[in-house]
Formats: sequence, structure tokens, C-alpha cells
Amino acid sequence: MDQSGYLGSMIFIFSDFGVNGPYSGTMRSMVMRGAGDVPVCDLMCDAPDRNPKAASYLLAALSREFRAGDVVLAVVDPGVGSVRKGIVVEADGVSYIGPDNGLFELIIRRASKVTIKSIDWRPEAASASFHGRDIFAPVAAWVATNQAFRASPMQLADRCVAAQEWPDELDEVIYVDTYGNLMTGISARGQDEKLVINNHVLGGARTFSDVHPGDGFHYANSIGLCEIAVNCGRADQVFAAGIGTRVCAG
Amino acid sequence: MDQSGYLGSMIFIFSDFGVNGPYSGTMRSMVMRGAGDVPVCDLMCDAPDRNPKAASYLLAALSREFRAGDVVLAVVDPGVGSVRKGIVVEADGVSYIGPDNGLFELIIRRASKVTIKSIDWRPEAASASFHGRDIFAPVAAWVATNQAFRASPMQLADRCVAAQEWPDELDEVIYVDTYGNLMTGISARGQDEKLVINNHVLGGARTFSDVHPGDGFHYANSIGLCEIAVNCGRADQVFAAGIGTRVCAG
Amino acid sequence: MDQSGYLGSMIFIFSDFGVNGPYSGTMRSMVMRGAGDVPVCDLMCDAPDRNPKAASYLLAALSREFRAGDVVLAVVDPGVGSVRKGIVVEADGVSYIGPDNGLFELIIRRASKVTIKSIDWRPEAASASFHGRDIFAPVAAWVATNQAFRASPMQLADRCVAAQEWPDELDEVIYVDTYGNLMTGISARGQDEKLVINNHVLGGARTFSDVHPGDGFHYANSIGLCEIAVNCGRADQVFAAGIGTRVCAG
Repeated sequence: MDQSGYLGSMIFIFSDFGVNGPYSGTMRSMVMRGAGDVPVCDLMCDAPDRNPKAASYLLAALSREFRAGDVVLAVVDPGVGSVRKGIVVEADGVSYIGPDNGLFELIIRRASKVTIKSIDWRPEAASASFHGRDIFAPVAAWVATNQAFRASPMQLADRCVAAQEWPDELDEVIYVDTYGNLMTGISARGQDEKLVINNHVLGGARTFSDVHPGDGFHYANSIGLCEIAVNCGRADQVFAAGIGTRVCAG
Repeated sequence: MDQSGYLGSMIFIFSDFGVNGPYSGTMRSMVMRGAGDVPVCDLMCDAPDRNPKAASYLLAALSREFRAGDVVLAVVDPGVGSVRKGIVVEADGVSYIGPDNGLFELIIRRASKVTIKSIDWRPEAASASFHGRDIFAPVAAWVATNQAFRASPMQLADRCVAAQEWPDELDEVIYVDTYGNLMTGISARGQDEKLVINNHVLGGARTFSDVHPGDGFHYANSIGLCEIAVNCGRADQVFAAGIGTRVCAG
Repeated sequence: MDQSGYLGSMIFIFSDFGVNGPYSGTMRSMVMRGAGDVPVCDLMCDAPDRNPKAASYLLAALSREFRAGDVVLAVVDPGVGSVRKGIVVEADGVSYIGPDNGLFELIIRRASKVTIKSIDWRPEAASASFHGRDIFAPVAAWVATNQAFRASPMQLADRCVAAQEWPDELDEVIYVDTYGNLMTGISARGQDEKLVINNHVLGGARTFSDVHPGDGFHYANSIGLCEIAVNCGRADQVFAAGIGTRVCAG
């Protein structure tokens, strides 16, 4: 009996809308209504705020949760609702729907098989400001239920030009969690490697209890990224760091 | 092919319970258990806290998300668990379940066809403090699944008397979002109209990028309300405003 | 017609992961994917942080929401991902999956019929730090769908030894809600009993409106616990209290 073999496709939502307010719920309801029996799961709603670059490295790390057939509705400003079209990226069997602002850059780059379509369909009355609800959510539901909609094939080279310049790994903090731990855009480093953040040199460890209280360290987090933490402390405060802070080899 | 034609009814939850604590989850679980296959979606759980007046204008604006057949479980204090009965409002085919404290006043007033029932059913052991879980949630599930329960027709005129005095549009801030943007209880104004909030005169714009950084403006938000914002700033701080702050024509 | 007779099992999630970040969503998605049609409901994600003792009393109080056949995935650090195995506790027909760190101690003690199994199954590549996603979530899905997995019967006496010393009721604050109300680990007291918290003597009341604004009191909260509150105030601030603060008979 193979007990790691899950079945069934899912729809994931990844956004910077926050847990409060009506926006997450409104967009989610549009997907749920359109997608019938396909389960819809909020993956996270505090993606790096209006920062598609940091969000792109985070989403790529989280993609290990996705299986072929899954649909990922991902919305991070800016560029949502702009003149640039929304896109559907199919990467190794997983479909990503969202803005063409670089959010899917690392997904695209790391996939072995990828195609892009631009979304041509428009609702009769789209809000100037809420393409997540009015365009991306219905399209995600249609993709999840194999329904057709107006779209055009797009050349890979025509995707967000600025994002094509981004490095393969981002040596910066890309997310700060509730405890002040710092996720970086680089993959996990060996425990014997040194990292430097704001002039602090850190060694590696397997987990928190392997260092003294108050000590900083880097470790392989549960989505494969190099994460910087302080045992019994807040790394963001101890190292005066936030999204965008550089992390270098020591 | 009509791609705007979604199918299937849904249950929405609108409350002031907050994202933390066991109350949102407890109430949601009662609806999910009772409603079987009907999808349940948290619309928002940070409705104006203990403020059914502000919440009433917000819920009415959000009602554009609902379709005939949908069920909306809405709970905002005070008045929940008091001697006044809970009600079921059917407005243009959408059923709203919650307290008779004015929360549905604007829904009722703007509907073209509306009926009200008072909820007579009582569980054998209702908590003194949690009618959302013990009364409204089971009733919402029964309405969504077409099951009978004890209720009595109610005259429209017998609904919450204080709320019947509220204006058709509320010229006040009714919600402050995570970014400090100020939703008002008035519908979106033309871009050439001026608004005044705490002695600041604001012009209209289509969206943030149409004004200079630091400038305040009003615009049509994605649920049709007039919203006040500051490009690259927090309107709540710049204008020292919060829920209840007056907004006047300039 | 028996209108209190809900049907169908559910899966509940109880954790200290917080509403932000990818961890709640990632673990939830693993349960949803594995459990097919069984509804999954987040009960709360701000359980007492890294405090399985306080969380154990809270979870036991919340267990009144569960019905025979339900599955509860509960994860509170520390001890998750340690050498101690995860466990499945079946208590009066409800299955609890999580770490053997005392989190289920009060559930076990208050049940009339209880069995424990240790989880022997391991995924091929489990994260060092995220057993919630990699072990407990799949097991919860299998339990909910009656699938077999590798597990061993465990003696009750072999469960977390430290927890076996905990009292039957905990005379301390175990949770502070958004409004500063203080849930305690003792069951609701009669309104004529006095309680003392940090030298403040409090009488009992039925609900907030039964005391003067600014007055503190204790009352029976909606999950049967003795809760301390201040009408129109924050009890945590007025009484300088937090999780762990003692509450004594007055």
C-alpha cells in the first residue's frame, strides 16, 4: 500500500490581501462557486506585500506542495489591473493564474516543461481595481474544471521583462514570519557554511534546540529554503532585518 | 458560451469575531456540519466591531457578491443573545440569518422583494452568550438545505426600530482596511466631485497611481463604495480618521 | 423532527501556527487532499503558543463541539518533531492526532472510553521541523477515511509522563482573546462565588451588561469555562494578567 499517493486536484490561493477585510473572502468565493467540487485551500494571504519579486521566490519554494493537476490562483500587486494581461502558466502540470508581473518567474524558470497563455477574456463589467475577483478567480475555476475561455498562446520571452533579469536564487530575506524568523530566497545551505546578515556571521544548525538561547543560526526550513533564526529570540530584531535585507556567504 | 454564469448556491459568513480565537471556527463548523455539500465561505470576520450600523452599509455593498439561493450568516454585536429574536431576511432570493439589530437594514431597504421571519426555534441548551453558534448557524444550514424549522412571519415594520431611522447612505467612514484606506457608507462619487474629511478637501481619481505620492483622493472601490485613500500613505493617519468620521460634500 | 441531529463527520484543525505564513495552509491542504469529501474546518490557529499544557485544557473545553466520528488534527509545540512519537487518541469516538506532549492529556482523562496508538508510519522524506504537514496531516486524513497505516497500540500509562501530573482543572489563565478577556482552565463557577486574580476580588455575573462599565467579573463562557472580563475594558490590562496568571477562590 503506497500511503504517500494522494489523489485529487486542488485549488490553492496565494495573495497579499491579508487575513482581514472582504477581499480574500470575496475572491475565494468566486473560485469556490465556479469550481464546484474541487477543494479550495488558502495557502497564504500575507505573501510579500506589493513585492512580486520576493513573492516569486517564496511561491517557487512552496510549489513543492503542488501536484500535477492542481491550480494556483496567485495575486500580488503591483501590476494587477494594469494594461499588462493576466497569464496562465502551466509548469510541470500545475496551472498558475495571476498577473504577468514576475510573480511566476521562478516557477517558470525551474520547471522542466512550461507554457504560457495570456488571458483575453474580460467580464462585461470588470472593476478597475480588483482583477483578482473579476478575472483571475473565474479563470482559475475554469482551468480547474477544464472549461474553455478566451486566451492566446504567449511566447516565454514575452513575459515580464524585468523579472527575466532576476537571479536564480535571491540572496535576500523574502519573508518574515510571526516569530521574526527570516526566510531567504536561497536554498538551504550546509550546516558547516557560514552566512552573514548585517555584519553578523552565522553558522548552520539542524534546528532551534541545537544552539544556545539567544544564538542566531541558519537552517533548512520546511520548504527547503535557508532560514535565519535566533533560539528564544526574534531574528528580525536581533539582526535589524526585513524583506530585502542582504544575506551573503561568510 | 456564457462564462459569467456561475452555478450553485453558497453560504457566506460575515462577523465581527476576528480571525483569532475559537469562535469563528466553532460557528463555521456548525454550518459546515449541517449544510452538507453546500460550500461555506468566510466572507470577512472583522466586520465593524459591535457596530451593526456601519456593518449594515458594508454588508449591503458586499451583497453584490451574492446570488439568488445564497445564504448569508451574519453576526455583529450588540443585540446578539438578547431578548430580541433572531431573524431570517429573504431579499431578492438571498437569505440572511442573524440578529434583529439593524445589521440587515440596508439589505432590506434596497431589495425589490423582501420578507422577514423571526426565528422561534431554540436549542435545548443555548449558551447565554453564543447565539451565532447555537441558533444562527444551525438555522443557516437548514435554510441552505431547505429544511423546516420553527419560525414566524414578521411584519417589515416590526424590525429593529432604531435602524429604520438610519439614512439611505451613511456619510461616514464604515471600515478601515489594513492599509489605512477608509471605506465610506456612501456610494462612489464622480471624479470631479470634492469630498471633505476632517477639513481636508479631496478630489476624485480612478486609482492610486493617478495622484502624486502623499496625496489623498477618493475613488470607486471594488464593491461600489466611495473610498478615501492616500497614495503611498495611510489615510487613517493622514486624516486622523476612523469608523464614524464624517465625510461631506466639498 | 429532531433538529439538533447533525450528520456527517468532520475534520477539525487546532494549532499554534498563527493565521499568517504558509504553515496553516500547507498543513490544511495535506488533510484536504487526503480526506476527499470529509469537510475540513480550522477550529483555531492561535492555540496557546508552544504551551501544550494551557492548550490541553482549552482543547478539552472545545471538545464539546466534536461528535463521534470526528477527527481532530492538533499541533502545538514543543515536542513536535522530537524523538517522541506522534499519537492517535480515540476518546469517546473522536480521534485526535498530534504530538505526545500532553496536548491530549485532559481529553484522555475526561473520556469514558479511550485508546492510544503511537504512529509508526514515516514518510520517505520527512522534514526535520514540520511533522504537522508530513506526518500528522496524512494520518488525520487516513483516520477520517478509514485507511490503515502503521501504528502500534500504546498503554495509557506510557503517554507523556509530565502531563500525567497536571491537575484536573487548571486554576490559571489559559487563553487571552482579542478583547483581553481571560479564559481560565477551571470550569464555570456559580455567580455567587468569588475569584481572585492578582489581588483583585471578582464576583460572578451572567454577562457583560449585568455589571457596571469598568467592573471586572467572572462568567460561564460559551465553551463552559470560567472566564474573567471587564465590561467596556480589557481584563488582561486591568488585572495585568496573561496566560499562566493564577486564579484562586476568593
